[in-house]
Amino acid sequence: MISKSPKLIALLTDFGSLDPYVGVMKGVILARAPQTRLIDLTHEVPPGNLTAAAYLLRSSFPFFPVGTVFLCVVDPGVGSARKPIALKAGGHIFAGPDNGLFPAALEGIPLGPVVELRNPKHRLKAVSSTFHGRDVFAPAAAALANGVALSNLGPAVRKPVPGAVPKPIRTKSGWRGEVIWIDRFGNLITNLGPSHVGKKSVIHLGVGKIPGLSSHYFQAPKGKPLALMGSSGHLEVSIHQGRADRAFRATIGTKVLSVPINALG
Amino acid sequence: MISKSPKLIALLTDFGSLDPYVGVMKGVILARAPQTRLIDLTHEVPPGNLTAAAYLLRSSFPFFPVGTVFLCVVDPGVGSARKPIALKAGGHIFAGPDNGLFPAALEGIPLGPVVELRNPKHRLKAVSSTFHGRDVFAPAAAALANGVALSNLGPAVRKPVPGAVPKPIRTKSGWRGEVIWIDRFGNLITNLGPSHVGKKSVIHLGVGKIPGLSSHYFQAPKGKPLALMGSSGHLEVSIHQGRADRAFRATIGTKVLSVPINALG
Amino acid sequence: MISKSPKLIALLTDFGSLDPYVGVMKGVILARAPQTRLIDLTHEVPPGNLTAAAYLLRSSFPFFPVGTVFLCVVDPGVGSARKPIALKAGGHIFAGPDNGLFPAALEGIPLGPVVELRNPKHRLKAVSSTFHGRDVFAPAAAALANGVALSNLGPAVRKPVPGAVPKPIRTKSGWRGEVIWIDRFGNLITNLGPSHVGKKSVIHLGVGKIPGLSSHYFQAPKGKPLALMGSSGHLEVSIHQGRADRAFRATIGTKVLSVPINALG
Repeated sequence: MISKSPKLIALLTDFGSLDPYVGVMKGVILARAPQTRLIDLTHEVPPGNLTAAAYLLRSSFPFFPVGTVFLCVVDPGVGSARKPIALKAGGHIFAGPDNGLFPAALEGIPLGPVVELRNPKHRLKAVSSTFHGRDVFAPAAAALANGVALSNLGPAVRKPVPGAVPKPIRTKSGWRGEVIWIDRFGNLITNLGPSHVGKKSVIHLGVGKIPGLSSHYFQAPKGKPLALMGSSGHLEVSIHQGRADRAFRATIGTKVLSVPINALG
Repeated sequence: MISKSPKLIALLTDFGSLDPYVGVMKGVILARAPQTRLIDLTHEVPPGNLTAAAYLLRSSFPFFPVGTVFLCVVDPGVGSARKPIALKAGGHIFAGPDNGLFPAALEGIPLGPVVELRNPKHRLKAVSSTFHGRDVFAPAAAALANGVALSNLGPAVRKPVPGAVPKPIRTKSGWRGEVIWIDRFGNLITNLGPSHVGKKSVIHLGVGKIPGLSSHYFQAPKGKPLALMGSSGHLEVSIHQGRADRAFRATIGTKVLSVPINALG
Repeated sequence: MISKSPKLIALLTDFGSLDPYVGVMKGVILARAPQTRLIDLTHEVPPGNLTAAAYLLRSSFPFFPVGTVFLCVVDPGVGSARKPIALKAGGHIFAGPDNGLFPAALEGIPLGPVVELRNPKHRLKAVSSTFHGRDVFAPAAAALANGVALSNLGPAVRKPVPGAVPKPIRTKSGWRGEVIWIDRFGNLITNLGPSHVGKKSVIHLGVGKIPGLSSHYFQAPKGKPLALMGSSGHLEVSIHQGRADRAFRATIGTKVLSVPINALG
């Protein structure tokens, strides 16, 4: 192909779809980087929920082409002293508030240089105190998509604010994790992974008990629960053609136990 | 124009907007076909509802430029033995699970060649059992948008699984159809068409009786029901500046009768 | 850059995301103007609500590059005698029904020429009576993005239908405005601006009383109300990490008083 691939910016926010907030950010980006391609990851992060945002970003970014700019604005502290930052990691660039989201989403991946987004050339002239997505982050993402060097955007930041992701805990009989996301279908995504759950583990969720791991949703009879390793490498609890969140009255934070079969009575 | 028109991929799924599922599919597509243009048809198909998906696809695809790739993933059987397929019809290409959606949406249109999407070159390296939209269908759509021949994607399929769309039934006094979709405004879209309803037909919906066809929403007084041939060529029942679904307590599947005026006692 | 920037079309409708209405409009546009870039402002305008649409458009368009085409279809009178129009203002082009939306959104900005969209060359061949977004406005927007002169789209319109935006009213003790929009976070956006509210004004909302203006959301303790000049230059009432709409049981139209501190008893 002769023409160079256009740069990608992937957007993740808690701005929802009711307001034109995301559209305005895109207008600001395309005014400064007209050839950029924009992809919405999701704008339905529960307001201010950094744990959910970290999970959603982590399960998405590895599928994007190298060099994608991830513009992630979940920003309960907008207008406060929290820094606006950009950083390199895993072959990509990430821009957003310095509130722990990126270290949480990138856990286990070495972080490259981090900068504070202070260069006024890559901000709107008037910066509001309530919409840095538009005034600070969108112009910065446009600059990065245009190939402006990270170091041109502002001074180096020594270490971004660390992020907290809930970790599974070793118990006498197995592992205790929790629900970290509930998807559109009511599937319960947990923080348990392949190292916490074996083919013969029993999953306990409230009074529910699910023996063994399935490999597809349809392995359980219609309306019955099953557990499987989902497409993001996390243990999921599902109901075949039903909603596990309702069946188990589970919410984000609900505890989930994984017990190897030989640990049972 | 000197530059060739970029290829279009139109997406229709039941993935909703809460999760980054659609965004990840787009990342996979643009990693492999960076010049492609992506259009969302809708991602709000009720989970697993193939009848709704078929209506929505059918009322949309004729408005797209020739050669558009329709990537349609409503896939209650993901991970089961159902085949992933792609086919040509009506000047376009359609890719998605072989579950009857395409034959239903394309009823009356001759189907061209059909293939099973088996070529590992046009799949992600690791194929999960729960997210073929990302692992199988997105890379296949990217290949098709890149101009890869259908026959390169896998072996021919003799006949896709047939699709069922509810058909109007002749009754003693007219036609009995049903509601097949309720749009954002509460308009009831039925499977009755111009051949089932005349200018002087009376439409019966539960205890409601609507005499004659209107040509615009505003022909009924505010708050009153009307029937018209909608923009997709289907009989619609509406309330002027109101919601017909609530007024008639109608859902998808609610029966609707069309009775010519001279059949009335 | 050698390649010319592609033209932008920004879309604002009340079509929601359930139906493929917006996707079909985009298919029509890209069939006629394949290089155009499309940005969604929002499609969640409450059905037929022109006041909300005007606020959302007004707070968005200044952030877009000069020459953007704004395709705005909030059209309770579709199929009636209301005219489909396009007009120039503020360096941009606006296309949509002649129902007062544009004069309201563009208040204070001189309107350039206005035309009625009557040229059949820039309409679909069959124009339905219920979906002018697809049949009339999308092809017109494509033509405008292609650089077709406004005057080629149809005859001049002398004066578009005027739009009504609720205006603040001077009272004995200050200003009475109202809530004109409630955003995704439950923030109450009012029609009061910097000329109605000073740093020392007290804001009255139902039985609530908020003294002074904050500059960031986090200036109030968690769960407490605050008032600030929002990113669109309007007075907003918020609850720090909460929802002001619920706390104040406010809806669009709820009255808000601004009283200078020295006017207090």
